[in-house]
This record gives sequence, structure tokens and C-alpha cells, in this order.
Amino acid sequence: MKSFTDYLWFQTPKRHDIVNVTDDIEERVSKSKIQEGFCLVSAMHITAGIWVNDEESGLKQDLFEWLEKLAPVADYKHHQTGEDNGDAHLKRTLVHHQAMLPVTKGKLDLGPWEQVFYVEFDGRRRKRVVVKVIGE
Amino acid sequence: MKSFTDYLWFQTPKRHDIVNVTDDIEERVSKSKIQEGFCLVSAMHITAGIWVNDEESGLKQDLFEWLEKLAPVADYKHHQTGEDNGDAHLKRTLVHHQAMLPVTKGKLDLGPWEQVFYVEFDGRRRKRVVVKVIGE
Amino acid sequence: MKSFTDYLWFQTPKRHDIVNVTDDIEERVSKSKIQEGFCLVSAMHITAGIWVNDEESGLKQDLFEWLEKLAPVADYKHHQTGEDNGDAHLKRTLVHHQAMLPVTKGKLDLGPWEQVFYVEFDGRRRKRVVVKVIGE
Repeated sequence: MKSFTDYLWFQTPKRHDIVNVTDDIEERVSKSKIQEGFCLVSAMHITAGIWVNDEESGLKQDLFEWLEKLAPVADYKHHQTGEDNGDAHLKRTLVHHQAMLPVTKGKLDLGPWEQVFYVEFDGRRRKRVVVKVIGE
Repeated sequence: MKSFTDYLWFQTPKRHDIVNVTDDIEERVSKSKIQEGFCLVSAMHITAGIWVNDEESGLKQDLFEWLEKLAPVADYKHHQTGEDNGDAHLKRTLVHHQAMLPVTKGKLDLGPWEQVFYVEFDGRRRKRVVVKVIGE
Repeated sequence: MKSFTDYLWFQTPKRHDIVNVTDDIEERVSKSKIQEGFCLVSAMHITAGIWVNDEESGLKQDLFEWLEKLAPVADYKHHQTGEDNGDAHLKRTLVHHQAMLPVTKGKLDLGPWEQVFYVEFDGRRRKRVVVKVIGE
């Protein structure tokens, strides 16, 4: 069994942002020399998530508008701590904070339109994503 | 370490559908000869998901009615590309597109009521699910 | 390759509850002697979930209030079976029922604020969570 661990760093200029990380992850899978295994991609900060969906600009706008409806900026109890990002914790919950990508014959085994996105809900600070590959 | 990869194909006659795939996956786990490991089940098309819940017809109807409330058919920006399935991308996000099933003593290690479902939000075309087992 | 499997049992006194299980899981990872791998934490009962987020009491209240808005107690078709917990099945869907935790150098490789929670939506009965570690 082999393992490979790396971290991607982000500091988005905007509070909300979405970054296609498919190539960054493919590069790590290639470095890992793992042919058959699993690649975990997980946002380590609790106001960001990982989304596996379509690289289409309209849909990416739809995603943020829809998340704003379901988990709006509002007056959350969490804000009594001095924070103002309660909505970001809930948005992370909706998109989910991680995805597991299958690795087959040394490549990400994704569907024809599947792309992997880092989704930021409270940017403008340094944040990490763990990429870990296990296999053989 | 052993690995086993297979794909399930679907072409549901209806736009929305839900298919219990627990036995199909158990069969792949059995073929893999893996005793201890993980089995990833992941929808490779971005308008379908994987749901681990109850085999109960009322609940399955509740699921679709509830998803329609939270992520309704509507006029999405995504539709400017000519697509009409923006809601399906969001519904996939809510149910999540994948599940990781533990394999213990050669069997799926599920709870007493846990069943694994393929959930289709834009059917009537051929779509795939990857089933990948890693372990020993 | 090594594997380690254990189960956490819960019987919360209230219908809704949230339990920080990070230390319980870290203990299992330590027992597994696995240095590099993945640790799956998955709720085996279909009215409970696993949430990776912040140990902050206000936010935990926000979570339940928000879930009640999106998946309220209501008159679901599922209740025609005699059950009364349709909302709990949907709440599990929103928070998701599982998380995969990376294990690096023998420890959970979590972000600075990431904590792992068992989230109960229909308590007052005995329920299980599977914790399975695979790696080397």
C-alpha cells in the first residue's frame, strides 16, 4: 500500500468564490504513483466545501444564489461569539465539505462532466484543503 | 491490497427515479474477494446522486417532494446554455453524489435499515455509477 | 494493509441531540496503529448523521433551527407506516450521514477547528455508528 498527502492553499480575494481544482488534484494523483485507490479531497476550514459538478459559469452562479436562499446571511446565535459567518457554516453543510475520488489506472476516474471545485463561503484569509491518496 | 472496479449503467424511463442498488453492490463486493475495506459508490453524471436510507415507498415519495421544494424546477442561469436541468444539479448536491460503504468480513457493513439508492433527477439517457472496492 | 473496525453506541435522552465524538474516534485511530490511511465514520441508523464543523454552542443551536426550517416536522407520507419521524430522514440527508477522516502520522488530519459530531434526529433508542480505519 502507498499513501500520498498534500495540502492545497487558498486565499480568495472575495468572500464567496469557487475554484476548479481538478487539475491540481490530478497532478497529486500522478505524483503519488498510485494506480488503483481513493483520493480524498476535504476542506479543512469549516466555512468552505468541495463540490463535484459542472464547469459552467451560469450553473456556478445558480449555486451561490440557491445557497443564499437556503442558508441566507442572517442573525445567527453563532454571531454572539463575535463571528459574522454563521451562514458560511451552513452553506458548507449543504454542499458538503469533502469528496472521495476514485483513482483507476493512475487517473481520476470521473464522469465526462465531473469537475472538482473548492467552494469558499468566507474567504479573504488563508485556508487549506487536504488531498490524500491511498492505494497501490 | 486488492482493488476491484465496476460500473453500473442506468437509463431510467422517467426523468425522476430511484433505484435500490444494494444487491448490485453486494454482488460486486463479493466478486472483489475483499474481506476488509471500503466500497465507494459514486454517480458519475452530475444530475444524479446516491442516497443511503430506508426502502419505504412513502419516504421515497417524500424525498422527491421535499427536493422539489428546496431545489425546484425554475428558470436557472444554467439554462442559457440550452440545458433545462438546473434543478437536477442542485438536487444532486442535496442528496450528495456518493457514499462510502464499509466492507467487514466480506460483506457491506450497513445498519439494519440502510439501503443504497441511485437517485435520478434527469433520466431517459444512459448514465453510469462507479463502484470501487479497496482493501484486503 | 491494516484494518480496524469498531462501533460507537448512542442512546440520547432527547429526540434531537449532538455529541462531539472527535476524541472517541481519535482513540480508535490510535488503537488501530495505522499511520497513513482513512477513517470512515458513518451513522448506521437512517435518522442520524455525522457533521464536521465547529464546537460552538450557538452554532449547534443554529444548525438545529435551520434544519427545522428546511426539513420541518410535518405530515409525511412515510407516516402512513405508523412512523412519525419523516423529518429525521430528511435532516440526515442534509447533514449527510458520514464523513471520511484522513489519518496522517497516526493522527486524525483535521483542520484547526474541525470537530466530528454525531447528530441525532430521533433519539431515545440505541443506535450505532461504524468507525472503520484502513491503511498502513
